[in-house]
Amino acid sequence: MRHLTLAASAAILAFAAASAARAEEGMWTFDNFPIARANQTLGTNIDQAWLDRVRLSSVKFGGCSAGIVSGEGLVMTNNHCVATCVANLSTQAVNYAETGFAPRTREEELKCPGGTAEILTDISDVTERMHAAGAGLEGQAFTQARDAEAGRIEQEACAGDATVRCQVVSLYRGGQFKLYKYRRYTDVRLAWAPEDRAATFGGDLDNFSFPRFAIDAAFIRLYENGAPAATPTHFKWNADKPVEGTPVFVAGSPGATQRLLSMDQLMTLRDVVLPMDQLIASELRGRLIRFSEESEENAFIAMDPIVGLENTYKRGLGRMRALTDPDFMRMKTEAEADFISRWMAREAAGAAGRAASGDASHAGSSGTPWLTLAAIQPTQRELYPAMALLEGGTGVGTTSPGGGSQLFSWARTLVRAAQEREKPSAQRLPEYADSRLAGVQSGLFAERPVYPSLEQVRMEWWLSKTREWLTVDDPRVRGLLGRESPEQLSARLVEGTKLADPAVRRALWEGGLAAIEASDDPMIRYLLSIQDETRAVRSDWEARVEAPTSRASEQLAAARFAAYGDAVYPDATGTLRLTYGKIEGSDVPGQRFGAFTTFAGLWDRATGAPPFDVAPKLLAAKDRIDPDTVMDMAVSSDTIGGSSGSPVVNEAGEILGANFDSTVLTQRNAYGYDRNVNRSVIVTTGAVTAALRDVYGMERLVEELGVE
Amino acid sequence: MRHLTLAASAAILAFAAASAARAEEGMWTFDNFPIARANQTLGTNIDQAWLDRVRLSSVKFGGCSAGIVSGEGLVMTNNHCVATCVANLSTQAVNYAETGFAPRTREEELKCPGGTAEILTDISDVTERMHAAGAGLEGQAFTQARDAEAGRIEQEACAGDATVRCQVVSLYRGGQFKLYKYRRYTDVRLAWAPEDRAATFGGDLDNFSFPRFAIDAAFIRLYENGAPAATPTHFKWNADKPVEGTPVFVAGSPGATQRLLSMDQLMTLRDVVLPMDQLIASELRGRLIRFSEESEENAFIAMDPIVGLENTYKRGLGRMRALTDPDFMRMKTEAEADFISRWMAREAAGAAGRAASGDASHAGSSGTPWLTLAAIQPTQRELYPAMALLEGGTGVGTTSPGGGSQLFSWARTLVRAAQEREKPSAQRLPEYADSRLAGVQSGLFAERPVYPSLEQVRMEWWLSKTREWLTVDDPRVRGLLGRESPEQLSARLVEGTKLADPAVRRALWEGGLAAIEASDDPMIRYLLSIQDETRAVRSDWEARVEAPTSRASEQLAAARFAAYGDAVYPDATGTLRLTYGKIEGSDVPGQRFGAFTTFAGLWDRATGAPPFDVAPKLLAAKDRIDPDTVMDMAVSSDTIGGSSGSPVVNEAGEILGANFDSTVLTQRNAYGYDRNVNRSVIVTTGAVTAALRDVYGMERLVEELGVE
Repeated sequence: MRHLTLAASAAILAFAAASAARAEEGMWTFDNFPIARANQTLGTNIDQAWLDRVRLSSVKFGGCSAGIVSGEGLVMTNNHCVATCVANLSTQAVNYAETGFAPRTREEELKCPGGTAEILTDISDVTERMHAAGAGLEGQAFTQARDAEAGRIEQEACAGDATVRCQVVSLYRGGQFKLYKYRRYTDVRLAWAPEDRAATFGGDLDNFSFPRFAIDAAFIRLYENGAPAATPTHFKWNADKPVEGTPVFVAGSPGATQRLLSMDQLMTLRDVVLPMDQLIASELRGRLIRFSEESEENAFIAMDPIVGLENTYKRGLGRMRALTDPDFMRMKTEAEADFISRWMAREAAGAAGRAASGDASHAGSSGTPWLTLAAIQPTQRELYPAMALLEGGTGVGTTSPGGGSQLFSWARTLVRAAQEREKPSAQRLPEYADSRLAGVQSGLFAERPVYPSLEQVRMEWWLSKTREWLTVDDPRVRGLLGRESPEQLSARLVEGTKLADPAVRRALWEGGLAAIEASDDPMIRYLLSIQDETRAVRSDWEARVEAPTSRASEQLAAARFAAYGDAVYPDATGTLRLTYGKIEGSDVPGQRFGAFTTFAGLWDRATGAPPFDVAPKLLAAKDRIDPDTVMDMAVSSDTIGGSSGSPVVNEAGEILGANFDSTVLTQRNAYGYDRNVNRSVIVTTGAVTAALRDVYGMERLVEELGVE
Repeated sequence: MRHLTLAASAAILAFAAASAARAEEGMWTFDNFPIARANQTLGTNIDQAWLDRVRLSSVKFGGCSAGIVSGEGLVMTNNHCVATCVANLSTQAVNYAETGFAPRTREEELKCPGGTAEILTDISDVTERMHAAGAGLEGQAFTQARDAEAGRIEQEACAGDATVRCQVVSLYRGGQFKLYKYRRYTDVRLAWAPEDRAATFGGDLDNFSFPRFAIDAAFIRLYENGAPAATPTHFKWNADKPVEGTPVFVAGSPGATQRLLSMDQLMTLRDVVLPMDQLIASELRGRLIRFSEESEENAFIAMDPIVGLENTYKRGLGRMRALTDPDFMRMKTEAEADFISRWMAREAAGAAGRAASGDASHAGSSGTPWLTLAAIQPTQRELYPAMALLEGGTGVGTTSPGGGSQLFSWARTLVRAAQEREKPSAQRLPEYADSRLAGVQSGLFAERPVYPSLEQVRMEWWLSKTREWLTVDDPRVRGLLGRESPEQLSARLVEGTKLADPAVRRALWEGGLAAIEASDDPMIRYLLSIQDETRAVRSDWEARVEAPTSRASEQLAAARFAAYGDAVYPDATGTLRLTYGKIEGSDVPGQRFGAFTTFAGLWDRATGAPPFDVAPKLLAAKDRIDPDTVMDMAVSSDTIGGSSGSPVVNEAGEILGANFDSTVLTQRNAYGYDRNVNRSVIVTTGAVTAALRDVYGMERLVEELGVE
């Protein structure tokens, strides 16, 4: 709840008028990186070949980022990025989150269920084809035509090869479309993870803050054909003590920013989306906390979900604070005013030119995208709760159907995929296009433990919040619940379903629609029964919110290119980007700290009471670790959720650490970049080296990393 | 999440410019009721004598309202107003919430622990004394001088008589001060309560909505000297079928409105106060829901707290919706603009007049109250979380220290009172002035069951949320927790304290500061240890937020009288008011319903699954109840939380029902009145009569009510 003082506001306002990116701002694509400006700002000398090497050494791992650090497929990411893998490989008796995972031999490295890793190998432009596909269409027809064309493009480029994935990426909110081609690894093994507490020291309280004392790092290894993948292009491990002011580049897949949204769109987030998402998440948090206190077993089951939920919640809180901060909103308002005035000047000049030349063709063709977006907001405000709770995938919020129940999610995928696969690929919901079925299937067949007690908490919470937010008299809620209460229905479904068994899922997938419709599994029957209502919610949203927003956003993107040239970067979309900055502390109100923390600082901060208890093995190694070794550091690069695990590299292409967090104040960077506030938090290669060598007996990996 | 359509917005805007009250708007004091306008609007013929009788028949019961309905102290209020009493009188084995409470004889009526009821007997003006006390003072000195003067006035008027209570009431945000004198009853007994489900049918889902099917009524009885109080002035019971369009008056003690706040103040509520309060309440709700699912015992313990919490939460949600509704905010903005323009016109006229007469004395003396209030907001935004979490009593939010733990609250009162009683009355924190000690003491000595498991949930939640919102590095948080975690500390305090025993509390109270300082009770020691930090938070808030806000609000109040004359009513302050309207349905988007519901409608809506299960005794009486009997009705009177239990009376002074709720859309009436939307929900005397006679065998009371 801290607010910036006048001094800080003045500093922000110095950046306010800029809708064009300034020094160190921007999550740039690898095919439009501002090489000259970065070199000038940082005093470096990188080139396109350097960029290509960095790209091919960078890995997308689930929703995280990672970097290759040896020639034999070894990859560094964050520990929190392997938390689900660790949980899936653990039992209450053998709990790797508690003990760490330190395989003595490469053969003991264990496969992460459902884990996939990807390397971006090619980028090509498909803007013309995508724009042509939607030309002249409105509403849902527009969305479907675009989705179908994307599916065709992906299919043409990648069909039939399980080792590649193709993805049509919308950039600049539809201003550009690129085809990204990935080398895909579906055999990803866990090579090392520290004790969870070593990575999460300070827990939720220290999350999104600095100084920080966390070794939030882990290693995975890419396999192909049952053997470690050969990865000749990789980052060189540099565990030297880092130096303040060093220029760094961070390569990763930041998830989503909303920097190109209009003020009216931001106010919908502030007034409707964030409050609903946060309020219901907060209740789930309360339910899970109490659940975890009921027994050792529940504590084990709920640990990973609570960490994930608290992270999402705290991020949302930072965003709420940004959008309710009068100074920040003034900065955004002024930036929009600058953009609008440039746009109006160009429109006026164009009209004058056309009038002089007698050209009447342009009249009324462009419209005012800001007004169009404003007009969509009442509808978006009205439809958001139902869309978020019954369908998810709103692109703006975090709420999704089923409350995170794995069983619900599998049943939904099975039912939808069976129904969709009856149609030609181009007419399906886009996530079930032929080009995407391999991904769907691997998620579905992965072996994962299912905890009915947790599933019950999630389903019950979701059903009761859906009833509450849509109201009990909403016909869709009546369809969802019938005459059962959320408690009764969720218990019946979770207890009765057999979907926890991968063989059952596989049989239902392979049996197609006939098998689904013949199934007496209560979860499958339930999902079948709610398809009409939920699909209607989605098509309504697509027709009345998504499609008109897409068209107006494309107009805005075009206007932005016209006003600011190529000094703009696209909003983050979960695809590979490069950002740059320096190793640097922070000195604004509410956020004052130096650039580094050390192990000595960790021993100081420890109280012994959770979450400020040092992990036992780490504590036992206290005397072996040089106390002046840097643990974590702050850098000024422009990152956001999804950047977790991003390799932080120097001018020489050497890896210095892995990005794992930022600060609460930095959460405003979802909506706008502020050089003075924005700080990413990095675990250093030095800390990782010390942990591997001095704590976890992983000399094997230290050697592989080339440390002498 | 429903939003008003354009049609509804237009209807609102027709009322927008009015800062003066229109027909049926206003929670009026009994000494400034607009008799002529009400009579004209409604076609009635009430007079001051009528008002006096209604006032003397109206009762304040805890945070609720009530009406006397017999000459022997019988009082009708809502069942939810006696829920705490019912819970305190129940055990898991004898659970009156489940069975209803239907004493066969008057002697079996049971005393409500800590219950007090009050009747407003006198009102006198003390504005001059209060304004003089604060004259020339700033900051905390201003607040203290005012509080001390109020204490003196109350002491002078009421000292030494336990049957009266005096209260200096600030009206029009300090524009007027009145001395209210009450006849006080500390022996209040429960005379009848229905099965809880009969009062709460539809639970949280039907709460704040209509149509409604709830018998949310109960009876208490006032006692004096061990015998039923004689109450010759009371409402006549009228159980006739109500008629749509009938003029009604509602007398009660609405808790708090914020209709006189400036837009900047409203934005602080929207951005900071409501989000924090709602988010942490939502987490507590999750913890309590899960807690209640753990066992029958926990379900019993948590029932009352969950109902209370959900009610507060839903009300907050309605308010968030109002303040994030663009149409409603536009209406408020336009009303403020009208006010400011009138103010500026008067200022200009005044300056011109003074200039013409050569008078320079006025120059610069008045300032601009809107700008003053705007300048306070950044401080209020910054200080609110600490003030709310560590001290409470912010006047703007619902969060308070201790998380609702009864043990914490007792310890806090004991420690503070002991410290304060060492000083002269005028120098104390105002809640410990001599005139208020009797009330403090009766709350402290009341016999109430304490459930350590629930206390633990509340304390743990409060400590962890305080740490989260103020951050772990806040020195006050370090003082609060030391090296313990919230889980450890709350467990230690709750397990170790002996304060659940009323004899222990009494001994500590009577022993004064010496006994407190010598106590080894961990909760007492804990409260002693945090006094410096928490008192500092309060004095900082009072100096930098409360005092300057009070002064600016008084200027605004004066300006409002000048601009709109006496056509304004004061914000609700938990004191007795009268509001008027008609029995009437609603026909705006998101809120369309007729004026009445019947028992037939209840049988229709019942599904059997909670909370749509009919209470067993009520269900068993189905055939005995005339299905066309009206259960609940909607009226257009202007009410808000605290109005619960308010007698609804006709022109003849006969009671037709008890107010028990309003709608979610109506929650906007905290900030502004909207005739088209505003509806109160009333349980009818007809429904209560049927319940007493046909369901609960309370012919004894039916006879006392004079029903033939």
